[in-house]
Amino acid sequence: MKTVLFNRAAQGRALVDRVALLGRHSDSPHHYTRTFLTPAHRAAASQIGDWMREAGMAVRVDAIGNVIGRYEGGSRTLLMGSHFDSVRNGGKYDGVLGILVPIACVAELHARGERLPVSIEIAAFSDEEGARFQTGFLSSRALIGRSDPAVLERKDADGIAFTEAMRGAGLDPARIGEAKIDPATLAAYVEVHIEQGPVLLAEGLPLGIVTVIAGSSRHLVTVTGEAGHAGTVPMPVRHDALAAAAEMVLALERRCGAGGSLVGTVGMLKVRDGTGNVIPGEVEFTCDIRAGDDELRRAADRDVVAAFEDIASRRGVKLALSRPNEMLAVPCSPRLQDALERSVASVGVRPRRLPSGAGHDAMMLAEVTEVGMLFVRCGAGGVSHNPAETVSAEDAGIAAEALLHFLRGFTSPA
Amino acid sequence: MKTVLFNRAAQGRALVDRVALLGRHSDSPHHYTRTFLTPAHRAAASQIGDWMREAGMAVRVDAIGNVIGRYEGGSRTLLMGSHFDSVRNGGKYDGVLGILVPIACVAELHARGERLPVSIEIAAFSDEEGARFQTGFLSSRALIGRSDPAVLERKDADGIAFTEAMRGAGLDPARIGEAKIDPATLAAYVEVHIEQGPVLLAEGLPLGIVTVIAGSSRHLVTVTGEAGHAGTVPMPVRHDALAAAAEMVLALERRCGAGGSLVGTVGMLKVRDGTGNVIPGEVEFTCDIRAGDDELRRAADRDVVAAFEDIASRRGVKLALSRPNEMLAVPCSPRLQDALERSVASVGVRPRRLPSGAGHDAMMLAEVTEVGMLFVRCGAGGVSHNPAETVSAEDAGIAAEALLHFLRGFTSPA
Repeated sequence: MKTVLFNRAAQGRALVDRVALLGRHSDSPHHYTRTFLTPAHRAAASQIGDWMREAGMAVRVDAIGNVIGRYEGGSRTLLMGSHFDSVRNGGKYDGVLGILVPIACVAELHARGERLPVSIEIAAFSDEEGARFQTGFLSSRALIGRSDPAVLERKDADGIAFTEAMRGAGLDPARIGEAKIDPATLAAYVEVHIEQGPVLLAEGLPLGIVTVIAGSSRHLVTVTGEAGHAGTVPMPVRHDALAAAAEMVLALERRCGAGGSLVGTVGMLKVRDGTGNVIPGEVEFTCDIRAGDDELRRAADRDVVAAFEDIASRRGVKLALSRPNEMLAVPCSPRLQDALERSVASVGVRPRRLPSGAGHDAMMLAEVTEVGMLFVRCGAGGVSHNPAETVSAEDAGIAAEALLHFLRGFTSPA
Repeated sequence: MKTVLFNRAAQGRALVDRVALLGRHSDSPHHYTRTFLTPAHRAAASQIGDWMREAGMAVRVDAIGNVIGRYEGGSRTLLMGSHFDSVRNGGKYDGVLGILVPIACVAELHARGERLPVSIEIAAFSDEEGARFQTGFLSSRALIGRSDPAVLERKDADGIAFTEAMRGAGLDPARIGEAKIDPATLAAYVEVHIEQGPVLLAEGLPLGIVTVIAGSSRHLVTVTGEAGHAGTVPMPVRHDALAAAAEMVLALERRCGAGGSLVGTVGMLKVRDGTGNVIPGEVEFTCDIRAGDDELRRAADRDVVAAFEDIASRRGVKLALSRPNEMLAVPCSPRLQDALERSVASVGVRPRRLPSGAGHDAMMLAEVTEVGMLFVRCGAGGVSHNPAETVSAEDAGIAAEALLHFLRGFTSPA
């Protein structure tokens, strides 16, 4: 049995090297896109399995294509993980870091010959972003036995059926149910993830402890005014759908700028048949409101919808909102937050607790066990879902060291 | 020589019947679209020529495909006309009314055996909207000898070259210059046109006398902010390109709502890679400002650009404006306005003078002769460039009667 002292700098460099290596497995030669069960995705799965084995883990691929490594210890299982699919033209750290950092920690334990009072499993989730089949949390849903049967009917942009993609990868669509794990075996779920925002960067901190994963309200909004010739309709008699929508964009921004964890975004806005010399007759846009506190979010949502209605009525345009798509906020376990905080402090970093505005696989696991999340600082101005997304080797090394501290101190709840 | 008394109601019905007949010549079986030198366009040209001949005119097709009918009289020529091409999915009256109403008047003169102290020519312009080759005023430009040689390089959406389209219609691209007329022969240019706006409709008036054709300033505006995850970037640190653009849309609307003939429109706005859960990083939009008074327009343009710069600087986004595309306002001749006003009054209509916010072939002819325009009330709420565009048979008949009065009273300037 070798005794290897943890070397933060070497670990960090090795981690970013692995992120880069894994990032080569892309659906596109031009940018990083890796979607459910494509050849690149299967190659990445295979590579992850190899690294798990190298780290001393037993590896299995479950019924939804998750790669799961197990490092034996006590009877209950501490599950860690994240996803290895990506959005189109995404960033290479998103998800992947939450697989590779735990593998590095297990490799270290393995090299030291250490076993813990819990067994460790690392789940490399095959699909969280869902870019290929418009799924969301497909793999972690399967793990908790909450698969949506409707996904079986889906086709991708090339017309390839979801079921055909599964069979092509040696998976049986009829057996997705077998991916379900027994919650009673779980001690907890812990996810390491790139922050995907600028908070830690702005505060000069490499790590953060997630308090809550924000809930969200989403609407699709259609504003119908009156199209007309841009030169001939006097301003006072116009019913310009875009001017009305512009007021709504600003109303949303103002209301969601009220503070706390509340954020609001119009990410998509389309002018139907928009052309320079025609007054817009119809505009469609998305409205996305999130907060760590569900009541805060719902109050904002009510106020925003009321503001939209006022604007529409004042301007004589028609407003149509889709039924809102709502997800409740998911709090992280106070016990795990405290334990993560101690581990962050142990590597010399001032602990900073912050909410997660993005959704994560932890949201699904929270339905069956307590969850904790460790954020790693996002470089390049805090951008994510973007090729510029990055994590420094130093921060990756610090994250691995903190997680190792956490694992060695982890005890199952009573 | 027959003596036929002008029957307003019969004339009106005949005119809307002809608009409907001509409207059947469309590039699309689904909607009314007629673009330069397509088979439908050539069939329409042929039909117009037939109607001109029936009205006692000599017909020629010039080097750019204009159909020109001549009714002999005095030595100088009063030119009338408008265009018979359309925008995509347009209205059937736009342009066409300014060809058919004069033909009806000449038919009446011909039936009465009347000759005037001027010869009359009616130009059915083959291309004003320019939807096929992204040209504008192609035909009236050719008539005044101001063709843009760059159009010869154009291709349509199907890759058919402009020159190939011309040759297919029996026209020689090398001879477009021959379409130029001798300005010294012209007494004036008069254009009848559907208003394309709601002013006459709102005031209950079938006719209007155009005072000026508005000038315009157009910009293409690009706002570059910072894309980011809609859930993870706190509101105070965002640089949302769409929120900035929304403020600009409202700044333009506010400034151009200051009164007078000023109007301002953002007709096209695009969010680059817009999707619901991403903060917009780049937005492009058009900015179109028009007024009958060039100084009024330029002052508004300066203020709007300054407001855009303030908004961009306050929000920390980058602003890029294309070089503005400017057209000066074209005043109609006071003498022709007065003559048209007398003719409008002669048919029992209260004369209403108003600016034209839309551009017309008269803008080109104004470079070589004095111009006048008679507007006809636009039904259906004043919409134009739209299948719902309409003119009532009664209004068409009143327009023909007023124009006939104008022609019989017309005298060449000294």
